[in-house]
Amino acid sequence: MNGADAVMQTLADNGVRACFANPGTSEMQFVAALDREPRMRPVLCLFEGVVSGAADGYGRMAGHPAVTLLHLGPGYGNSVANSHNARRAFTPLVNVIGDHATYHQKYDAPLASDIMSLAKPNSRWVKSAKSADDAADLAAEAVQASFGPPGGPASLILPADCAWSPATRKGPVLAAKTRAPPSGAAVDAAAKAIRGAKKPLVLMGSSACGEEGLAAAGRIAATGVRMMADTFLARQPRGAGRFSPERMQYFGEAAIKDLDGVDVMVLAGTKEPVAFFAYPNAPSVLVPDGCAEVTLADQAEDAETALAALADALGAPSAAAPNALSLPDRPVGAIDARSVGASIARHMPDETIISDDSVTSGMGTVMQTRTARHHDWLGLTGGAIGLGIPAAVGAAVACPDRKVVSLNGDGAAAYTVQGLWTLAREKLDVTVVIFANHTYRILGVEFMRTGSGDPGPAAASLLDLGNPRVDWVSIARGFGVPAERCETAERFDEVFASAMTGKGPMLIEVALA
Amino acid sequence: MNGADAVMQTLADNGVRACFANPGTSEMQFVAALDREPRMRPVLCLFEGVVSGAADGYGRMAGHPAVTLLHLGPGYGNSVANSHNARRAFTPLVNVIGDHATYHQKYDAPLASDIMSLAKPNSRWVKSAKSADDAADLAAEAVQASFGPPGGPASLILPADCAWSPATRKGPVLAAKTRAPPSGAAVDAAAKAIRGAKKPLVLMGSSACGEEGLAAAGRIAATGVRMMADTFLARQPRGAGRFSPERMQYFGEAAIKDLDGVDVMVLAGTKEPVAFFAYPNAPSVLVPDGCAEVTLADQAEDAETALAALADALGAPSAAAPNALSLPDRPVGAIDARSVGASIARHMPDETIISDDSVTSGMGTVMQTRTARHHDWLGLTGGAIGLGIPAAVGAAVACPDRKVVSLNGDGAAAYTVQGLWTLAREKLDVTVVIFANHTYRILGVEFMRTGSGDPGPAAASLLDLGNPRVDWVSIARGFGVPAERCETAERFDEVFASAMTGKGPMLIEVALA
Repeated sequence: MNGADAVMQTLADNGVRACFANPGTSEMQFVAALDREPRMRPVLCLFEGVVSGAADGYGRMAGHPAVTLLHLGPGYGNSVANSHNARRAFTPLVNVIGDHATYHQKYDAPLASDIMSLAKPNSRWVKSAKSADDAADLAAEAVQASFGPPGGPASLILPADCAWSPATRKGPVLAAKTRAPPSGAAVDAAAKAIRGAKKPLVLMGSSACGEEGLAAAGRIAATGVRMMADTFLARQPRGAGRFSPERMQYFGEAAIKDLDGVDVMVLAGTKEPVAFFAYPNAPSVLVPDGCAEVTLADQAEDAETALAALADALGAPSAAAPNALSLPDRPVGAIDARSVGASIARHMPDETIISDDSVTSGMGTVMQTRTARHHDWLGLTGGAIGLGIPAAVGAAVACPDRKVVSLNGDGAAAYTVQGLWTLAREKLDVTVVIFANHTYRILGVEFMRTGSGDPGPAAASLLDLGNPRVDWVSIARGFGVPAERCETAERFDEVFASAMTGKGPMLIEVALA
Repeated sequence: MNGADAVMQTLADNGVRACFANPGTSEMQFVAALDREPRMRPVLCLFEGVVSGAADGYGRMAGHPAVTLLHLGPGYGNSVANSHNARRAFTPLVNVIGDHATYHQKYDAPLASDIMSLAKPNSRWVKSAKSADDAADLAAEAVQASFGPPGGPASLILPADCAWSPATRKGPVLAAKTRAPPSGAAVDAAAKAIRGAKKPLVLMGSSACGEEGLAAAGRIAATGVRMMADTFLARQPRGAGRFSPERMQYFGEAAIKDLDGVDVMVLAGTKEPVAFFAYPNAPSVLVPDGCAEVTLADQAEDAETALAALADALGAPSAAAPNALSLPDRPVGAIDARSVGASIARHMPDETIISDDSVTSGMGTVMQTRTARHHDWLGLTGGAIGLGIPAAVGAAVACPDRKVVSLNGDGAAAYTVQGLWTLAREKLDVTVVIFANHTYRILGVEFMRTGSGDPGPAAASLLDLGNPRVDWVSIARGFGVPAERCETAERFDEVFASAMTGKGPMLIEVALA
């Protein structure tokens, strides 16, 4: 048993079952160890941004970490944007970042860099192994650290000699730390504040939005309290029968207007809401003047239990009236975000997973799936586009019996388009929808909002994706994924319905412009 | 004039002429400023790894920096791998990394991260602006810092409010610091060591391999001294009439064997040679036992002048006998790396630029172009694959009148395939060659070398790109680039010849397997 075996077996002993990888020379021992650890499923991705996004999607659905395999600083660098999303989603995830052999590091070989400095910002835990046995111990520590609470990426830097040297043993099995239950005082304070308020509101973060948290939220809503969730959630169970909180508006001034009159804001599994971006003369903090803030549970505490306790303290009914299943009519005519959303709501099967990187085009689907069949919605928690296809890869590996639908703006999909290849290779049951408006539409809006005036020709050229238009059908087929372009609502409805009854990867380009 | 204008104009005043960009909300003011600064050419890329690779290729050819425009930590993260290559190439390059407004940073909004920690490892200079006027001053400082010596990426973090607030003035114009000439003592010591040696060798780094350094190297070689260059050079002028140094072998044991008996190694614009990777029982330092090392010029000094002085001190002839133009015969039969190299050597026009990310497939072209028409060869200095297409984008923007040939392994090309779109959009005169062997061939070699045994099914699957095979013609067309697949040497010779006489982007898939 060498260090790589010890790390691999320790990861497996601690419950890790999937390895998303784009390895290089310094990771060959770890690759070899995969053949000696049948509990671990290796999944090759053509780029490390696909690796980290897949591990994020996997962790959100599985509730336990996948491991990534990355090649030194540049390989980790390529994974940064989706690691950032994973950090913001509190997704349990373990990075194994290969490095030069310990004794080789001082020579500053071409691929050497300061991996620690690169990895720190998006790692909740990062350590570099000093020996094979140390690596095994750190592998166990990394899995434990990835659960937090709150969870997030834990990065183990694995020098090549720690992988190839003999190990005397595996690392331990370490229990994950659980989220602390809310204190009675916090529950009492929140209940008291709500009772004394004219317009109380509870703001729910990702950790509050599990099945039980939503059930408790529905009970609280029945007492007349507004229930709202963060704009982007790691994973939200949705559909008929489930309570669906309102959503914090994306633009700060819209949020403040929506919150007008709210005099108590109770925070459950989240922190004080802030604007996604600052703008000249716009608020940073999305709390109305004079509104009291009360923390029921922070991001590391058990917000679901806290909400149930709050519901009890408020004397809420034992269950809220469920929403009945209600599906949109068959859309006809011009294809647009609304018609696409209707078709998705109509045809997606029970327990579909939606990986959302749709930027300006997804709202039609958000709205129309509220009372559709049960599904989980994975949001862009960190704002780093390029998550939609990779997270779908990971979700499909985590949940092989569930249909996955990946919603993507065309600008976002271009970031990590190589992920299509892994869908084909692993025959994953994912339908990728590309909203092809051939522009960074969000930036047209933002340009105006930042007070930049009207875009001149140079600026307009940087917001435009139409010259040339990307042919998504051609690209998908190039990566081995069957694809179709849909130019009417009726055609999309038909093609999407067929994708939902079939199995395996498929891409549909929505011709929006 | 706002801060973005002040930064933009300061960059232009300091000689920056191209902006490779993938902007977001926090960079909209900078985008708007492009319309008020006609000296700056904006070039949109669909991914930040293309941005940084393009800026690297531009800087290597132009000799002065382009500016990148990147969106906070995740956008910078996506640029890391090619920034790493640029750092190792000592390429002058200025990053402008947008950030949240200064007053908004404390709220830890979704896109916030520790940009400084991310940027430090691959930046020779990194600062964050505090105000609009400060940003203008730092823009000038960044350009100056990017020249070094030695040069490299300089990163200016630009908070959104520093861009949108009024500026009272532009920043200064700062002169680049020049490389120090070699000391007479260093030249004398090197000459003396060479005269006293049985088998002296001069090792040349990127900064020694300009036109004048190579001419001096040819003179020194004429005195019987072996002249060798680092394995990967930022930019090497090559072809008939130019001296072509030997190349340090990639694999350490081959290098040591090749250096057998060398008793003096003179370092010119480089440092002690080390193995690209460590392997069990293989050397880290590529210097034979007992060989004396003498530094003629370090990486920040003027190695070209130093070589000329050394040639004088050795009493070398005033010029070496030039190699005559000599082109390979038309290749016939099966297509392989050698036949492709022959066709490239035969047809590439004078002053072609070769952007090389061909991993195991490029050696055939290296060998056969030695006496071809004049060309510049841009190597993979940092070992981070995914540079070939992006660097070609940048080189073509820097040198619009020169033909660019981009050589890519298929694994490498998949990293930054979105770069094809910018070739189409900007109608750049680039021919992209994809060596499609449908495997990470280098890793098959490395797997064995690291002592990992024979790959089992799991390991083999992580080295294989053949399931499914990427259809590069389909992908290129999807991004708007005309493409052809060539399955014989004759057909490649024909298609490549036609690409060399035509203008604009083209992709050729070499069907190696």
